[in-house]
Parts: sequence; structure tokens; C-alpha cells
Amino acid sequence: MAISVTSIGIIQTPFKDIDGMPVQPSGARDVPGQLVLDPQYEEGLCDLDGFSHLILLYHFHLSKGYSLTVKPFLDTMRRGLFATRAPRRPNSIGLSIVRLNRIDGRILHTLDVDMLDGTPLLDIKPYVPTFDIRSDVRAGWLEQSQERSTSLKSDQRFREKK
Amino acid sequence: MAISVTSIGIIQTPFKDIDGMPVQPSGARDVPGQLVLDPQYEEGLCDLDGFSHLILLYHFHLSKGYSLTVKPFLDTMRRGLFATRAPRRPNSIGLSIVRLNRIDGRILHTLDVDMLDGTPLLDIKPYVPTFDIRSDVRAGWLEQSQERSTSLKSDQRFREKK
Repeated sequence: MAISVTSIGIIQTPFKDIDGMPVQPSGARDVPGQLVLDPQYEEGLCDLDGFSHLILLYHFHLSKGYSLTVKPFLDTMRRGLFATRAPRRPNSIGLSIVRLNRIDGRILHTLDVDMLDGTPLLDIKPYVPTFDIRSDVRAGWLEQSQERSTSLKSDQRFREKK
Repeated sequence: MAISVTSIGIIQTPFKDIDGMPVQPSGARDVPGQLVLDPQYEEGLCDLDGFSHLILLYHFHLSKGYSLTVKPFLDTMRRGLFATRAPRRPNSIGLSIVRLNRIDGRILHTLDVDMLDGTPLLDIKPYVPTFDIRSDVRAGWLEQSQERSTSLKSDQRFREKK
């Protein structure tokens, strides 16, 4: 069953190319980016300025195809796709949690952005501790390596179908 | 620009009707649900069993249309849509964090499910503390009411376009 989704705006970031991008917001601390919402959705931003963090859903628009196992940025072994946050997925939807700095009309000034410039925005949801923060978390193969995401940069591996 | 996404499986839950459902996983503590992945994706589950929590993206398949302001379950005032987690959105994609109990082949046994039975699954991502847990969070209008999500149940308000 195909479901049609549509861009509601564009994410502007300093990252013009996949090379050298942070692999997660944890590696993009303080990096500024703007969400430019399409004008028809501006009314939906009401009350959002009280939230410090936003969950963004967006389209990995340069990702083509996918493999069910991938060698992630944070590992040297192939892992099952759904055990990674790799962009090449059956549905190429990305998720990042960013900090909201301020809202000017339909432009949201955010920090900690790890997306490519020009990424199509699909949804904005408020980040809510009771809903989104879990305790007693085990992070599988990422348990040891997740901290490396603060410094690791992207390369070309997800550009082409391998 | 329309982007086509597709169901990768089905979420089975005890909730056959919108009435009386929890409004968030925080109100569905220990509620069991199964993710039944379509067979062609099973290989992508490799390594996922090391993770205690999953981020699920799914289609709010019974949500039709949207309004840019909504009266959310947890408030008596209308709020901007993007400052809520209401299901009726320009892109009707839901996000829940559930606990993974065990994986049997292509069936994932999960806990804390707050979705309607038969919900189409769009993506599974591992929940990773360094990526997904933020500190110093302000939750806007939900700051006071988010805790009520542990007991509040859904009603019909998002069934029809208002």
C-alpha cells in the first residue's frame, strides 16, 4: 500500500555535501539551521516556542535504494538495517532531535542540525520528556560506539547503492 | 513534491477502536503488541535484539485531513498543530518509542504500544541514548500536563475532520 507524503518546508543547513557531515545531532552540537516552513502551514507553529527541543521527520532525499544489511558509520561490521540509523531504508525518512532557538514567522531557527542543506521537511513534533525519554536503555552494538558520534563525520558510503 | 512511502509490516495491538486508547506509550505501560514485518525485510532485523527500545514510525491510517490548530487530549485550549502530537497532520506519520521484548523470526514482541490494531508500520529505528535523550528540556504547554498522559485515554476527536 503506497502512502503519499509531501514536503511541508525545507531545512537549510551548512552542509552542502554528504562528505564531512555529522552523522547525528550529537555530532552537530550548536550547528545552526533554519526550517523554512511553507506559508500555508505557518498557523500550525502557534505555541511551539515554549518547547526547547523538536523532533524533525524529513526525507533523506539523496538516498536511493537500500540494502537489508549495512556497514554503519559507527562500526566496521555489517549490521541489520533496522538496527542502524542509516539513511538508505525502505522508507527513507530521517529523524533528528534539534534545539529550537527562536521562531520568526514561518522560519524556525534551530541548533544541533545534522541534515543536508535542502532536505525536505515532513513533520515537526514537540519533544516531550514523558513521551520521549526512556530509562534502562540498552543500545546493542551501539552501546560502546554511540559516544563516537560526537566527532565522527559522514563519508560517501550511503550515496550510491552498494 | 510527493514522496511515496509504503507499509513494511503491520502493528498488532489490543486496541481495536480509537475510543479508550492510551494517548502515548507513557499511558500504555506493559501493553503488549506485535510488529509483523513483511517477509522480504526480515534480514534487516539482524542485531536489533541487543536494543531495549525501538523508535517506530507508522501511518495514522484512520486519520483524515487536518486542522492547523487542534484541541489536544492533554489540554482544553486549541494549540498549534506542530506543538502537539495529534494524529491528524499534513503528513500523518506517528512516532512511538516502545520496549522490545523479543524477536521471533519476523515478529517483534514489544511492550508499551499505543497504536491502533492494524496500523501500517513504516520504519523501525534503534533508540540510542546519545542520539535521542536530551537534557534541559522545556515542554511548553505540555510542561504541566505531560504526566497526565499516563492515565488519559483517547476519544473520538481525531476521527473526523472538524
